[in-house]
Amino acid sequence: MVKNNINGCNELSLRQTAGFLKKHDNYIILTHASPDGDTLGSAYALYYGLKEIGKTACVICPDVIPKKYGYFARATDHVTRQNSTVIAVDVADKQLLGALEEEFGEEVDLNIDHHISNTRFAKNLYLDADASATAESIFELLHKMKVNINDVTAKALYTGIATDTGCFKYSNVTAKTHLIISHLYEYNIDAPEINKLMFDTKSRNLLELERLVLDSAEFHFANKCMVLAVTSEMQEKTGCSGTELEGIAVISRSVEGVEAGITIKQTDDNLFKISLRTYPPLDASEICKKLGGGGHKGAAGAKVEGSLETVKEKALRAVKEVMEESYAGVTSSKKG
Amino acid sequence: MVKNNINGCNELSLRQTAGFLKKHDNYIILTHASPDGDTLGSAYALYYGLKEIGKTACVICPDVIPKKYGYFARATDHVTRQNSTVIAVDVADKQLLGALEEEFGEEVDLNIDHHISNTRFAKNLYLDADASATAESIFELLHKMKVNINDVTAKALYTGIATDTGCFKYSNVTAKTHLIISHLYEYNIDAPEINKLMFDTKSRNLLELERLVLDSAEFHFANKCMVLAVTSEMQEKTGCSGTELEGIAVISRSVEGVEAGITIKQTDDNLFKISLRTYPPLDASEICKKLGGGGHKGAAGAKVEGSLETVKEKALRAVKEVMEESYAGVTSSKKG
Repeated sequence: MVKNNINGCNELSLRQTAGFLKKHDNYIILTHASPDGDTLGSAYALYYGLKEIGKTACVICPDVIPKKYGYFARATDHVTRQNSTVIAVDVADKQLLGALEEEFGEEVDLNIDHHISNTRFAKNLYLDADASATAESIFELLHKMKVNINDVTAKALYTGIATDTGCFKYSNVTAKTHLIISHLYEYNIDAPEINKLMFDTKSRNLLELERLVLDSAEFHFANKCMVLAVTSEMQEKTGCSGTELEGIAVISRSVEGVEAGITIKQTDDNLFKISLRTYPPLDASEICKKLGGGGHKGAAGAKVEGSLETVKEKALRAVKEVMEESYAGVTSSKKG
Repeated sequence: MVKNNINGCNELSLRQTAGFLKKHDNYIILTHASPDGDTLGSAYALYYGLKEIGKTACVICPDVIPKKYGYFARATDHVTRQNSTVIAVDVADKQLLGALEEEFGEEVDLNIDHHISNTRFAKNLYLDADASATAESIFELLHKMKVNINDVTAKALYTGIATDTGCFKYSNVTAKTHLIISHLYEYNIDAPEINKLMFDTKSRNLLELERLVLDSAEFHFANKCMVLAVTSEMQEKTGCSGTELEGIAVISRSVEGVEAGITIKQTDDNLFKISLRTYPPLDASEICKKLGGGGHKGAAGAKVEGSLETVKEKALRAVKEVMEESYAGVTSSKKG
C-alpha cells in the first residue's frame, strides 16, 4: 500500500491519494507563504473539487492573497481545527508555511507537491517531481476522482500551471503539461485575460524602479556579466519591495551575450541579497557557495554584508573565479 | 471539389491540399517579407516534410533570414523557375511578398495561410482562420499526408506556433494548439532553448534604447494613456531599428491601469509611425482611423507627418475623443 516511508512520511500513489481525499472530510487546505499562482491555484482547485463531491473545506494562506488572484480565490467554508484533515499544497518544507508553521507544521495529514527537494514533513505525501506544477497533479487527482471540473476550477488550474512554467517557456514543461492545458481550454477560462494579469501587467511604480535599475546597469568581463543594483533608496522612492522585485533578476539574464546576471538588492543598511542567474557552463550555485549561499545551476542566491560597492566587488570576484575555471582568458571592462 | 472561388482563387480543404502537395513537385516555397517565426517555421517544416516524401523543394525569403532562426532555417535545394510549383506560406496578400512580388505575385499556385484578411491572390488557397499560426496547418497537413516528422521539422513547427501566440499567451490559442504542441514535445525540440532565443533575449543596444524610451515616458488622462517616443536620435545612438523595435509597443500596454498605449516611432525627419495598443472598451482601430490609419480592436497603427510634438498632440487628441465616447469624465495630467 505504501511506496516509501521516510521520516514516518507515507508516499502515496495517485490512486491512493484520490482514495484519501474521498475518505476524509473537513479539509483545511494550506498554501505556502508569499503565495504564488501554483500554491493558490492548486489550493482553490482542490477546494472547488472537494466541494463538488460534498465535502466541507477551507483554504488558509499564511499571507495576504494578492488581489490579482481574485478571479478564483474567493471566500471558502469555515472549518474548525477539531476533527479536520490538514492538506498542504505546493509546500516543500514546513518552514514554508511561514506564520502557519507553529500551528500546522507537525499536523499536515497530506502534502501534495512537485518539488524534488520535498522534506517529507507531512504524514502522507503525493509527490510528482516530473509535474511542471502542483496544479498538474491536482488536475490528475480530480480526473482520477471523476470530479466535475467547472470554469473557476479550470481557471485556478490554468493559473497554477501557467505561472510555474513562465507561460510554458521553462524546462519543466512536458507533453503532459500541454495535454492538460488542452483539456482546460474546453472550459471558459479566458486564458488571454489570465496571462495579461499574470505576465504582462506591471505597476507604474515597478516600471519606474526598472528605469532606475537600468540606469545603473553595469557590464563586466567582456560584457558576459551584467550587474543590476536595487538600493533601499530606489525601493523607497518608488514604493516597490518584496515579491514585486522578483522580475528584476529575470532582466539580468535577458541580454544577449550575458552569461552571468547579478542582481543586488539592499535589504538593510549594510545587508544585500544577491540573486544570480547563469547559463551553462557557469554554475550559479558554485558561485553563490563562494558567497556563503547556494541554489541551483541556473539560479542561486546569497546574503552578503557590507556596502553596495564591497558586496558588488565580492560578487564579481566570485563570478570571475568560476568564469576563469570555466573559460580561458576573461577580461574586465566597466560601462562608461 | 472546390469549396469557393473568389477572384479565381480555389479554396481547398485540408484533404485536397494534402493531395495537391503529393501530386506536384519542384516546389518553390515563399515566405513573407520581414520574416517572422511563423512564416519561416511554416516554410521550413513544409520543406522538410516534402523532402521526406522525395520531392525537390527550396525556400525563398524576400529578406535576409535573421540568424536566430538558424537552428531550423538551413540551406535548401535549388529549384529552377521552369516547371516549378510555387507555394506561399503565411502570406495574406501578394504585397507582403516584398521584393518577390514582381516575380511571383501572380504566380502562386498554392497559398497556405491563417489570416482572415487573406486577399485570395493565389490560384489555390488553404485558409484556416481558426489556426493560431500557419504552422498549425502545416502540422495538420503533414499529419494528413502521413509524412514522417523529424526533430528539426518539429522545432520549426514549434517556433511558428510559439512566436505567433506570444508563447501561448494570446487569444488565438485553442485547445487544438496545445494538443499539437503536446505532440511536438515527443520530439527533441529543446523548447526552453527556443523560448529563450525567441522571447527572453534582447541585444544590449535594445536594452539601452528601452532605457532611453522609458526615460521619456509620459502618462496622460488620469494615467490611462502611456506615450513612448522612439526618436531617430535614439535609434542612431543605440543602433536599433526595424523589427528590433517591435517590442516597444508591448511595453506601452504592460503598465497597470493603462488602457491606451501609444508608441511613436520616427521613420523620417518629419514622419512618425504610431503604434497603438488598447484594452476594451477602447477600440484602437477607431482611434487610428482618425489619424488616417487602421488595424484591429486591440492593436492598430497610422503614419503621421509633423514634428514629434505635433504628432503626439494629434495622437493624444484622437485617444481623448474615443475615450470620451467610451467613458465619462476623462481628465488630463502630464508626468512631472
